[in-house]
Amino acid sequence: MNKQGPCEEVCDSLPTISHLNKGLGPMDRPMSAEQIAAERWNLLADDLSLPAAVLYEDKLKHNLHWMQRFIESYGARLAPHGKTTMAPKLLAMQLQAGAWGITMATAHQTRVAYAHGVRRVLMANQLVGRENMETIAALLRDPEFDYFCLVDSAENANQLGRFFQAKGLRLQVLLELGMQDGRTGVRNTAQLAELLEELSRWKEVIVLCGVEVYEGISQDEDVVRGFLQWALDMAKIIVARGAITRTPMILSGAGSAWFDVVAELFSSAQLEHPAEVVLRPGCYLTHDVGAYKSALLRIVENNPVARGMKSTLQPAMQIWAYVHSVPEPTKAIVGMGKRDAAFDSGLPTPALHVPQGSALPCAAPAHWRLTRMMDQHAYLEIAAGDSIHVGDKIAFDISHPCLTFDKWRYLMVVDEDYIVIDVVETFF
Amino acid sequence: MNKQGPCEEVCDSLPTISHLNKGLGPMDRPMSAEQIAAERWNLLADDLSLPAAVLYEDKLKHNLHWMQRFIESYGARLAPHGKTTMAPKLLAMQLQAGAWGITMATAHQTRVAYAHGVRRVLMANQLVGRENMETIAALLRDPEFDYFCLVDSAENANQLGRFFQAKGLRLQVLLELGMQDGRTGVRNTAQLAELLEELSRWKEVIVLCGVEVYEGISQDEDVVRGFLQWALDMAKIIVARGAITRTPMILSGAGSAWFDVVAELFSSAQLEHPAEVVLRPGCYLTHDVGAYKSALLRIVENNPVARGMKSTLQPAMQIWAYVHSVPEPTKAIVGMGKRDAAFDSGLPTPALHVPQGSALPCAAPAHWRLTRMMDQHAYLEIAAGDSIHVGDKIAFDISHPCLTFDKWRYLMVVDEDYIVIDVVETFF
Repeated sequence: MNKQGPCEEVCDSLPTISHLNKGLGPMDRPMSAEQIAAERWNLLADDLSLPAAVLYEDKLKHNLHWMQRFIESYGARLAPHGKTTMAPKLLAMQLQAGAWGITMATAHQTRVAYAHGVRRVLMANQLVGRENMETIAALLRDPEFDYFCLVDSAENANQLGRFFQAKGLRLQVLLELGMQDGRTGVRNTAQLAELLEELSRWKEVIVLCGVEVYEGISQDEDVVRGFLQWALDMAKIIVARGAITRTPMILSGAGSAWFDVVAELFSSAQLEHPAEVVLRPGCYLTHDVGAYKSALLRIVENNPVARGMKSTLQPAMQIWAYVHSVPEPTKAIVGMGKRDAAFDSGLPTPALHVPQGSALPCAAPAHWRLTRMMDQHAYLEIAAGDSIHVGDKIAFDISHPCLTFDKWRYLMVVDEDYIVIDVVETFF
Repeated sequence: MNKQGPCEEVCDSLPTISHLNKGLGPMDRPMSAEQIAAERWNLLADDLSLPAAVLYEDKLKHNLHWMQRFIESYGARLAPHGKTTMAPKLLAMQLQAGAWGITMATAHQTRVAYAHGVRRVLMANQLVGRENMETIAALLRDPEFDYFCLVDSAENANQLGRFFQAKGLRLQVLLELGMQDGRTGVRNTAQLAELLEELSRWKEVIVLCGVEVYEGISQDEDVVRGFLQWALDMAKIIVARGAITRTPMILSGAGSAWFDVVAELFSSAQLEHPAEVVLRPGCYLTHDVGAYKSALLRIVENNPVARGMKSTLQPAMQIWAYVHSVPEPTKAIVGMGKRDAAFDSGLPTPALHVPQGSALPCAAPAHWRLTRMMDQHAYLEIAAGDSIHVGDKIAFDISHPCLTFDKWRYLMVVDEDYIVIDVVETFF
């Protein structure tokens, strides 16, 4: 894996990975990622305590560069959403591959990024609460730290203005525009006028740098396009009022499902102010076989840039687990549960099967599927007579990387021979 | 909070709590739990970075003793399921209050418990896979460590026999009986005969200590009672074959929903072998306002012991979060998401409301309710005209403690004045 800066290299050589974590190999004391890589744990040879979370280095790197190229082909900037992985090593990879900055969702997440060398964070959320503001204020003492948060109400603007004025600090914000029936964000011109008026009172403290949207709550392309067009109309109003004080202004949108549409519409927007388009997908790095696979199928079908790239994103994360029991002819119980993989957007999908004693993964039969997950177990539907035994390993593709990453403090990075070559730490 | 043994006291005074975790107060370097308690962070005065997970000391202790008394009144033993909290401080509290041992779900969890001083673990799961067996084998080198795992197949019995024989170790197991259409466990007399035959081959290595069931997959009392009765009939067969080598044998069941029924049926079982009934609820310590509240209502209505106790379990955990935006008259957006609270068994419920600038929590209006959660946000349905503002704090009761605990590395223990008096670390 790529490293970035002296901090990561030092961390990698410190024995900070406690043996009291799940999904690791033989350890009786804390070890460093370097020491672990030197052990060459073999996933296929049962060196790991399963369940374990596995990242495939080749696929990760493929996805890393695929998205960077896609975004650049629109002349846009990539600020990958770091909340997905909360893994400083992966953030460093993304920055090294050309990302403009990292998106985060909270003050805590921003602090984690900063502590690991990230110097530009777009916090795609409101900054609320004294201690959260204190966290950001402390980071802003570093003049090299470029930080933006969202603002969508006069009330919040007033709170931010008072707090950061008292600190003698300036705060960069993006004005958030929101979808009707959606999440956060200004809904109409009345709310916009009220917010701009409040911002104008705090213009020595709050620096309005651009406009932000999150379109990912809708699953309907027409709704998304209509919303983005409305947002551009509102951006024109904001520009016309002279409220923007950054050049280029930032025009930011795009979760992992509609980045093509946002890239297309925002990069061709005609605003009376130079604009920098910043897109924020997060799930592309590992991709999945659920919601984001479906989104990608649409993108590859409709988007000329994606079609021209001749490859697509690949699922780069799997959860490996053991068959614990085959108590009924059509049911096996697997040692993986809601504690190990996301389950809110489709259950994990059996991808590989490694019979006990074999070192050869084969494709899991297409008719195998999970029907239920409990905290620590999954129910696998099989056909009577299938060859499946206690101690067999199954690798599951997942749906929704965000809620899979946050179940693991350490993920194993393996090479094409299923040898652990690095360990990725998360900070949830 | 109670402490147990020198280990916990030493840990509490080491500055091992990193400031890079969510839900903490002002920190710019790692601190110890003792140092944090000395700071007297005030939840109501916005000292914490929200969202934060909060445990109420008085309610925790109430629940702790309530369940211990309930189980003891049946002459049964309590082995609280530690997978719920994975918090060594809470396990120590449970042991100090009289628990017989701790239940765990995996080899990793067992190692965490052992490393924090727990010396009796009932692992309510099959032990599968070389590295998981290695983990347990290393712990079994300590003759003071009393460990049981489940076995429900001849295949697994054979694997365990071969592994532990090669190590020169003996392994204590409970034979798991399972519900039709259920999870793990022997379903019928043919499977039982096959398993007992395999166990008899390994009797120098595998010590059959009793019988275990998990009835919690059913929500129907008649089904549960029928299953428990069948399990007792099977236990009689096992006893009659002379397969049990521990006196008293262990007869274990009960998740957090049916502990009353299991206590009643198992403690009055007539077996031709002395038996020790070991019950394994886990969620009682924090309780909830969802599935386990419903279960408790049934218990209090039906169970004479529970009725006689004159108090019931109380919800002892809440997630506190800020209102981020009130973008529509009937909708507020709260800074708490699927990363912060369980959502698989009912969404969190608004319990307390602390208006911005106030230090007085009041009951949240009864008509407030969450309608949706995303990774880092929740949609709160309100009524037009409600007094709710950006920066207000809301405390949410939760449903399903297990999947709430595992979203937090540190939980704040507060006293009745909402002052942080301890920090509970988890090991997921």
